Formats: sequence, structure tokens, C-alpha cells
Amino acid sequence: MSKIIQASILPGFMELLPNDQVEFDHLKMIVEEEFKKFGYFPLDTPLIEKRELLLSKGGGETSKQIYNIENKSTDQSLRFDLTVPLARYVAMNENELAFPFKRYQIAKVYRGERNQRGRFREFYQADIDIVGRDKLSIYNDAEIPYTMYKIFKRLKIKGFSFHINNRKLLNGFLNILKIDDKEECLRTMDKMAKIGEDKVREILGNMKINEEKQDIILSLFEERTNEETLEFLDNFNKNNKDEVFAEGIQELKLVYLNMKAFGIEDECIKIDLGITRGLDYYTGSVYETFITGLEEVGSVCSGGRYENLASNFTKKTLPGIGLSIGLTRLYFILKEQDMIDFQEDENYIKALIIPMSEDKIPYAIDIVNLMRDKGVNSQIYFESGKMKKKFTYADKIKAKYAITIGEEEVKTNSLSIKNLTTGNQEKVAREDLIIHLNKN
Amino acid sequence: MSKIIQASILPGFMELLPNDQVEFDHLKMIVEEEFKKFGYFPLDTPLIEKRELLLSKGGGETSKQIYNIENKSTDQSLRFDLTVPLARYVAMNENELAFPFKRYQIAKVYRGERNQRGRFREFYQADIDIVGRDKLSIYNDAEIPYTMYKIFKRLKIKGFSFHINNRKLLNGFLNILKIDDKEECLRTMDKMAKIGEDKVREILGNMKINEEKQDIILSLFEERTNEETLEFLDNFNKNNKDEVFAEGIQELKLVYLNMKAFGIEDECIKIDLGITRGLDYYTGSVYETFITGLEEVGSVCSGGRYENLASNFTKKTLPGIGLSIGLTRLYFILKEQDMIDFQEDENYIKALIIPMSEDKIPYAIDIVNLMRDKGVNSQIYFESGKMKKKFTYADKIKAKYAITIGEEEVKTNSLSIKNLTTGNQEKVAREDLIIHLNKN
Repeated sequence: MSKIIQASILPGFMELLPNDQVEFDHLKMIVEEEFKKFGYFPLDTPLIEKRELLLSKGGGETSKQIYNIENKSTDQSLRFDLTVPLARYVAMNENELAFPFKRYQIAKVYRGERNQRGRFREFYQADIDIVGRDKLSIYNDAEIPYTMYKIFKRLKIKGFSFHINNRKLLNGFLNILKIDDKEECLRTMDKMAKIGEDKVREILGNMKINEEKQDIILSLFEERTNEETLEFLDNFNKNNKDEVFAEGIQELKLVYLNMKAFGIEDECIKIDLGITRGLDYYTGSVYETFITGLEEVGSVCSGGRYENLASNFTKKTLPGIGLSIGLTRLYFILKEQDMIDFQEDENYIKALIIPMSEDKIPYAIDIVNLMRDKGVNSQIYFESGKMKKKFTYADKIKAKYAITIGEEEVKTNSLSIKNLTTGNQEKVAREDLIIHLNKN
Repeated sequence: MSKIIQASILPGFMELLPNDQVEFDHLKMIVEEEFKKFGYFPLDTPLIEKRELLLSKGGGETSKQIYNIENKSTDQSLRFDLTVPLARYVAMNENELAFPFKRYQIAKVYRGERNQRGRFREFYQADIDIVGRDKLSIYNDAEIPYTMYKIFKRLKIKGFSFHINNRKLLNGFLNILKIDDKEECLRTMDKMAKIGEDKVREILGNMKINEEKQDIILSLFEERTNEETLEFLDNFNKNNKDEVFAEGIQELKLVYLNMKAFGIEDECIKIDLGITRGLDYYTGSVYETFITGLEEVGSVCSGGRYENLASNFTKKTLPGIGLSIGLTRLYFILKEQDMIDFQEDENYIKALIIPMSEDKIPYAIDIVNLMRDKGVNSQIYFESGKMKKKFTYADKIKAKYAITIGEEEVKTNSLSIKNLTTGNQEKVAREDLIIHLNKN
């Protein structure tokens, strides 16, 4: 015999026990069902891509976290998000696709992050994106968060809020303030929640932004109602003419109004001028989503609009908008906070059929065939052993019913059905089995 | 602007256009639904595992094909199958799992194979396995191919056949012939279809197996009916006493009879003494599955029984049995042979809603909300443009209906619905919309 190797997985990877896996899959199923209803097509891109292509937007943080494959004639790596592969796919299949192209992808991505609680190196992203040719209607900017809203509602998450902002508005605002390095300024603003006001002021100061301008920039972070924010913007617009700023306000208003027109309550939307998504390349709407009371864990669903999604891969103009749920992280948070409340049926396995002796197995096979043909998840316990052991098994797999088959049942063409939650036991004629299971 | 990079994927990777992806996902959904009905729990293991662990069964072909990750403190690689991760998982969670542990996993695996038609470097496997503690009933050996049978039936594959054999039988047979290196002999037999009888005889000859014994070994490959094969085995057993051989016959007979007891027709089962699965470590039942007329493409669903699945990771005895469909390859074959016939509904998108002008969008939003709440996959065409362009889009996404909304429709609270297959156009009251869509 070969030596025993300690069975273990790598740190930073999530792997679940069977009942938790059922729960996670249910979460994934809800997300996928909603994506489909909203008319997104599925997409399944390779996990491994050419490295040059993955890093085409420039390296930075990402290139340090990327997983590279060893010793291949072409440099290849694991994807770190689903957006770059989408851009590559759209450019590659431009002539085959119908635009606007709506696609979803729920798949694993890889980032060699520092190992910490709630951060995973392998995790699911659930992305929806809409890619247009030349133009893409602003209504999409409202429908895309509405899709996510429907999902959060089905997940029965009590409080959550979409924080929306607009990059044109921010760029116009920094134009008015005559800030040269807008990108660096937005990246700094993006860190506000993490590093705090003093540190932000310090960095802005180092950028030679004077205190008066710092005050104006920091005024974006003041607490206001949506109405007050829109008023603040209108006033600022009146006093400082800038075309890009005005366009940004106009877009933000439309997105806000149309999100409500789709059916999102006002308390689930927050116009938040402090949202910049400074590390990404968005050019219009930007979004972050927070669970009420869990704001400190960060956004669970983020995204925005790109003027030109695939500019690295094609000369055509392909505007895109997308939102992404960090599904592994969302599950981790909901689980940790005991907020999982979305399963209609606690019992993945509906029935365990227990033949009292081996000669009852043919009868058990007939019964299980019947149940499975009606779509009922069920098993036969084929192994020999004491009844207690068999019922312990039924409990462990969380079966709803234990169905025993003995001499008597075979003779009278019936079944003994025990509801393992209530402890109720009933004798049921074979032809009434499915009706019995459905009504209970 | 940065330079344009040619958008492409690596060779040996399958990536589909949207309508094909819908088809593939439907195939995957059917497989998953059946696995669930049969009571298998989902499992989702990390794609990256410790290399030492993946290669613990010994290297050989596999180690040459493995994808390694660069520059990590622990050597890590991509999984090349789902069986080794299962063994690792079961050993790791022994105390938490209920045995027999039934799990399915439908996931991608990676093998750096030589690039050739129908062979992929990234491909889906759809695996079911049952793992027992100490013992595992022989009935499982019949139910597991029955699960696959139900799947092939739902896929409407016209002819297919499970080829079954037993490793004990083969080992006993080679015992009787006093063959020393049984593994090498089985590996050689496994290559029969590929290299032919002459080459097999040559290798056996080099192993110092004389011509008389070669004749007996090759007699296993003779064409016989199932009844004739069982008779051949019984005769051989009468004339040559060997305990392992007798046990193998007994098991093979039980598996054959119980597969029929579950409901597999005799013409879908072939007792095939030439099936050895010589490259794997099976110890009892072995299976391969062939599509009638496409035998030369090889087995589309293979597996068998291990006396001790996780012997590299635990001292406990954990017998296991499993079958695996090469899903990417199966899809490729069915597509190539024009054999895809499993979709109940050709139209992934049920309706495209076309507002005739922007002011009709709020009405369109009400309608699309209604449809999606009823589970109908639908989209609004938000973009401006000519009607012809909008209808071309509806055709391209294969929408079943185009629903137009103009002045008249808003005024009379109705909808114009065009069936894009039949060309039929109807005016329908808003409250009758869902009924109308369901009845057509």
C-alpha cells in the first residue's frame, strides 16, 4: 500500500458539506432563473485565457493576483473576472451576435488575494451585461439594477440599497474644480470608507489640491436624501456651467426615475455621490449595493457602464453595461449572519425507501421508479443492517419521509410512510403514494 | 488608445455561440435533473488542488497532461478528473457524511491532450458516485447505469448500449491461465479496438504468453449474445475452479439481472468480456457505453467499482462505484451527427416587446414585469431605429413572439402579438396576455 496523504484543500477555497451545498446551489438557481426571465443568454467561456489578453487593460493589482499556468508555449492564465472574457467574446463573434447582446455568466474566477475572512481565492461571480453596437439606451442602466433587485427580493434579504452615481457627473465636477489628475482623485475618493476623511485630505493635499477644493470634494460625501442630492446637483450646475457635468446629472436622474418606474422602492435606492468605482474603467452609471446593517463588509453587487467595452480587441464602438454579484461572498455573509431564508423546501431528498429484507428490493425498485418518474428525489437504502441505522441515515440526509416495505406491505400492495419531521406514520395504498406525498 | 489585440481563445477549448450555449445548457440541465431525482447530492470541489494529492495514484499519462500553476509555495494543479477530488473530499469529511454517500458533480476538468477533433483540453464531466463505509451493496452496480439510461432516453438517443464486465472475473480468468502480470495483460486487452488483434497477440507474445493462452484470451472478444456469454462463463467455471472467477461471474450476473429489473431493455445491455478499463484501478464492475453506429468514437459514459476509493487518504475502507459522462464530447458528437432532439421548446426568449416610440416604454415596462413575474423569458427592445431592424433582432435571438406597442395599443389597453414562426398576428387585451402566450 502506498503511504497515506493528508486529505486537505488549499487555503482560500470554499468547499461545502452536502446540505450547505444544496443551499448554495439553491441560491445560484434563483439568480440564474431571474437572469433568464430578464432575457439574458447563457455564456460559458474557458477558464484559461491568453495572458496578454487578460492583462490588456493594464496590470496593476490584477497582474500581481493572477494565477499563471506553467510551461505552455503561449502564456496563459486563469481569468480573474468575467468582464474581460466577455469583451474578448463579443469582439471575436461580432458578426454572429445580435446587438444589444444580453448575456449572463455564473462562474468561478481566481485571484491570489491575501487570505482573510470572507475573501476567497476561488469564487463565483454572477454577471449580467448588455453590449450594444455604437449606442445603448439609458433604459438599460435602470433595468440592470432592477434584475438584481428582483434577486435580492427572492433571497428575502430584508434591507438592501443600490447606491448609484455617474462618472460623467464626477468628471464634470472635477473639471469645474480644475483637477488635473481626475483618475487619481477618483481612486482616492473610492478609498474614503476604508481610510477615512483625514487620510483622503492628506492624499488630495499631496496632489496640490487646496483646502477649499478639498471641502467641495468632500461635500459629495455628505448625508442627504435623494431629493436633497438632486437639488444639490441642480444648484451646483446652475452656478458652474460644464457640459459633461450637466450630461451626467441628466443621466443619473433618468436612471433614478426609471429604476423607480420598473418598481424599485425609493428606500432601496441611494443616489450616492461618493461612489466612484475608481479602480475600474467605467464612463457613465456606476453602482454599488449594500445590505442594511452590513455596510462595512462592502458592496455585494457592483458594476457600471463602459463607453467602449472591447476597445482593446476591436475598432468598433461597443458600449456595455453590467452588474456583478460576488456569489461566494454573498453566501458566506448570509450564512454567517444567519440570514438564509430563501429555501421553499428544506428537504432535498423527499423519501428514503427502506426494504425490510433483501427480497423486498424488487418491490422497492418499482416504487422508486414511480416516484422518480414523477420528479420526486428519492433513494432506496440497499445496505443490510439494523432499522435504527437506516432511520439514522434518513435523518442525516434530511429525507422528508421514510417509506418502509415489509411482508405486510408487499402482500397488501401498500407502503408505510413516516413523516420524519412530525413523526406521523401512515399506511398508504400504492396507487395513492404520489397524491399522499404531494398533499403533505 | 492602446493597440488592438487579436481576440481569440486557446486551441482545444470549446466556446459556443448563444443559441448553441442554450442547447448545451439544456443538455446539462437534463443530466442534473435526473441525478437529483436519483438522490445524489451536489458537490462543488475547488478546481485547483494540491498536486501531490492529485497524483497520489501514480503519475503515468496523467502527470504529463496535468496543468500546473506557476510559482506557489505549495505545488498546485488543475484537476484532471472528478474522482480524485471526491476521494479526497470523502476522506476529509468522513465523520460528517452519511454513508452510503451519493454525490453528483458536473464540472470542468483539464487535460493537456494532443489537440484533435472531438478531444478537448477543458471539458465537462458529469459524474455520479456512491461511496460506502466498509461495504456497498451490489444493487448500486445496477442502479448507477440505470440513472444514465434514463438520461440517454431523455436525450432521445436512438440506440445505445451499456457494455458491462467485471474485474474479478477477468482477474480470476487470468489466474486460471497462470498469467503473472495481470495488469499489463488487461491494459493490452483494453487496446484491442485501437490496435487490433495482431498487435495484441504480438504484445502478449512478448510477455511470454504462449499461443494457446493467447487464443483463450482472445476468445473473450468473440461475438456472443448475453445468454451465450453467461453460458460460456458457466462452462469455463465448471472446468476451471477459481474462487475469484466464480465470484466475478456471480456479481456480473446480479448486475445484469438487476439492470433489467430496474427497467433497462436487454438490447441496451451487452455483457462484453473484452471491456477491461485497463488504465483505471477498478476492482469489480466495469462499464463502457456506446452509441449505436458511433462505436468508433469510443465510450461516452464509463466507470466502475473500486474496492477502496480513498486508500491514499485514509486507512478506512470506503468502497465506491461511479459512472462519468464526458459531457462536452457527448455534445460535440450529437451536434456533429445532427442528433440533438431533446429540446421541448426551441425558443429561449419567449417574447421581444417593441415600443413604437420612447413614450411607450413605461407601458412596455408594465407588460414585461407582468410576463417575467409569470416566469416568461422576455425583453424590451429599448433602442431607437427602424421597425425592420427590430424584427430582425427578434429573429436573431429566436424570440417566439414580437409584441408591438403603439398609440392604439396604449389607448385600448391591449397588445399586438406576432408569432414569429407562423407569422400570425393578433390583437390581445392586456389581461389576456399570459393566457394567450400559454395556449400558443
